[in-house]
Amino acid sequence: MLEDTPFTVVETSAGVTFPEGFEASGVACDIRCTGKERLDLAVIHSKTPCSHAAVFTRNRIFAAPVKYSRGVLGGGLRVHAIVANSGNANACTGPQGWDDAREMAALTGSSLGCDPHAVYVCSTGRIGRALPMERIRTGIGKAAGTLSDSVQAGQDAANAILTSDTREKVVAVEIRTPEGVIRVGGIAKGAGMIQPDMATMLAFITTDARIDSAKLQSLLHPAVKRSFNSITVDGDMSTNDTVIVLANGASNVVVSSEIEDAFVAALNHVCEALARKIVGDGEKITKVVELKVSGAASDQDAELIARAIGNSLLVKSSWYGNDPNWGRLLDAAGYSGAEIIEDRLELFYQSLEEGSEPIPVFLRGLAVDENLSRWKSIVLAKNFVIDLRLHLGKGVSRIFASDLTEGYVNFNKSE
Amino acid sequence: MLEDTPFTVVETSAGVTFPEGFEASGVACDIRCTGKERLDLAVIHSKTPCSHAAVFTRNRIFAAPVKYSRGVLGGGLRVHAIVANSGNANACTGPQGWDDAREMAALTGSSLGCDPHAVYVCSTGRIGRALPMERIRTGIGKAAGTLSDSVQAGQDAANAILTSDTREKVVAVEIRTPEGVIRVGGIAKGAGMIQPDMATMLAFITTDARIDSAKLQSLLHPAVKRSFNSITVDGDMSTNDTVIVLANGASNVVVSSEIEDAFVAALNHVCEALARKIVGDGEKITKVVELKVSGAASDQDAELIARAIGNSLLVKSSWYGNDPNWGRLLDAAGYSGAEIIEDRLELFYQSLEEGSEPIPVFLRGLAVDENLSRWKSIVLAKNFVIDLRLHLGKGVSRIFASDLTEGYVNFNKSE
Repeated sequence: MLEDTPFTVVETSAGVTFPEGFEASGVACDIRCTGKERLDLAVIHSKTPCSHAAVFTRNRIFAAPVKYSRGVLGGGLRVHAIVANSGNANACTGPQGWDDAREMAALTGSSLGCDPHAVYVCSTGRIGRALPMERIRTGIGKAAGTLSDSVQAGQDAANAILTSDTREKVVAVEIRTPEGVIRVGGIAKGAGMIQPDMATMLAFITTDARIDSAKLQSLLHPAVKRSFNSITVDGDMSTNDTVIVLANGASNVVVSSEIEDAFVAALNHVCEALARKIVGDGEKITKVVELKVSGAASDQDAELIARAIGNSLLVKSSWYGNDPNWGRLLDAAGYSGAEIIEDRLELFYQSLEEGSEPIPVFLRGLAVDENLSRWKSIVLAKNFVIDLRLHLGKGVSRIFASDLTEGYVNFNKSE
Repeated sequence: MLEDTPFTVVETSAGVTFPEGFEASGVACDIRCTGKERLDLAVIHSKTPCSHAAVFTRNRIFAAPVKYSRGVLGGGLRVHAIVANSGNANACTGPQGWDDAREMAALTGSSLGCDPHAVYVCSTGRIGRALPMERIRTGIGKAAGTLSDSVQAGQDAANAILTSDTREKVVAVEIRTPEGVIRVGGIAKGAGMIQPDMATMLAFITTDARIDSAKLQSLLHPAVKRSFNSITVDGDMSTNDTVIVLANGASNVVVSSEIEDAFVAALNHVCEALARKIVGDGEKITKVVELKVSGAASDQDAELIARAIGNSLLVKSSWYGNDPNWGRLLDAAGYSGAEIIEDRLELFYQSLEEGSEPIPVFLRGLAVDENLSRWKSIVLAKNFVIDLRLHLGKGVSRIFASDLTEGYVNFNKSE
């Protein structure tokens, strides 16, 4: 923790149950129909109604629960709960899928005594198969009956939404204000590359701050842009990606203009920490590389370049091979569509070790071959920084990208 | 051969020396500095001056020889030769690289007794290293001294431009017209995924037809679009991609309006056959899938969808695994940016076996699960067709895409 950070990161597995007034549960109802005991359905609940905000996938093919939850976001009601299952995405499932999403909300609402339009619905997993609704019905009843504000309950919810993730993703922070303490907690599941079928990113964030929905939505958009939308494993965007924030006001601390900066910093931290956990847990990856692009003609150009590099198979393969292959980086930058003048380009590799400096590998159109041994040692690490400077304007972008491994291909070659 | 094709495909390894009046050579000058005997420098030459046309990479970072050859295309002179080396791309090499490209043209021109601006220059291979000019100088002298119009000479040129390709790529066709015979020949090297550093596609086509440069350029653009620009291995576009056509008129047959259709068909065939050889020889691939998209709102939308599918790591991994995973296909179509209405989508898999029909897997928003065993058998083949129909408009696109294999990653993980 930096001394001047306006919030404290709390070591807890509670996540969504860390803020006051939230309870959660994660239960096993064998949605994958494998006969194995595995948590696969989560409910998050607040007895008091919540302000809320959400961001959804921009994929033109989106799952039934996304369609339903968009209605909740736009419906004007305050929200009480999120119900989410793993193992089946309820995507490309036609009218039956829509009925099933609505039934999930209705069952959760009736179990919890709230309006079905006060319940967000999320699904993740296999695409194109009807939900096993008998199991879902049993699961929702069980989950509603075992809600708790305990650390374990929050952890169970975090586990129930996982698919091919290797570990749960939980973050909790605390903001001390003159009016009292605000808590923010979050859980997430992996982005890019989900077994068996689909790459879905889900994140659920709770807070006991008092803030209205419009304000919360205006803060969530930039937070998502700099976190979940700044990571790439395989460049694929799923049919089900969803980020939801619920704010129940239980702390009685209003997010006034005095403490707004602290709240924004905390929300950004939660989103960024979850995003880092997601990309660091990408399927079979061995490295996460921070790509910094600056001096582009515009922010948009900088992002085009960062994504072209971060999604290039040749670049990602070379990272896996510990090969400091800057030629492929510049090639990808060149075909990104962004404005580039080769003679002005500067490319640096930087270690994350304390006190390390950016090592130039290409300066204004020419390789700096004498630094080769230094780059070679930098790219051996699991994490390092690539810093590309265009000297054309003020556009900047930063993303975190994983490598591409034989394990990824092997893992994804079949269901 | 179909009966109504206006040209004949000729089985020969001659390629560029198949048309009248062209000679070629391929020599070994150890540009890779490995001490091994390997053909790595080619010259193609016509004693009579040629009309010409060319298409180059759109990458903003382009190699010195691309810059030089753009000058040749725009220079207004008729052209006599192409000089090309493998093993070093002469890209990201600054002023030295520019001097070296010019010297390659000058040496070739003085050896052949023609203007240096009548010589196209191409390089492919490693990026960011100066050309070994002593070796290049020796090689150009040797190549100019061993020019021949033999089959072997054409084959040597075809071999000298290869990098990580596993085999040479040669096509030759003949058009019988009332005025006489026109010949078209071509050679190419692999696109996408070139060892050691860079993914470069080169294609050189010769013809003894009589046609002016402006006309030839107008025919080359659509031919490239439907061939070389309709294949994808890894989505990367190189700093050196170049297609050149030389027409020396030695057949004395003018491409008049009567025979233009036949000439266009022959040129398209040569480009498409070379493109098919390229994608079929992609690094460590096991499959080439034909992606047909129709009924899109526009051709541009159709191409966005085809490329999103053809470049999706999840889709390509599933092809490698013989997994008929249509969920990932629809997901990629959804994030392509093109207009899509899920309820109208129809997706078919089709075998290339004679008499086979498209098998529906998804019809207007719903999976056709009962066909699963039939898709499974289709995707076992090395080649099959995926046919996506949007029912929104008249936009169509067709591309050929390879799978993604563990071998690809292993091959590209280091230099």
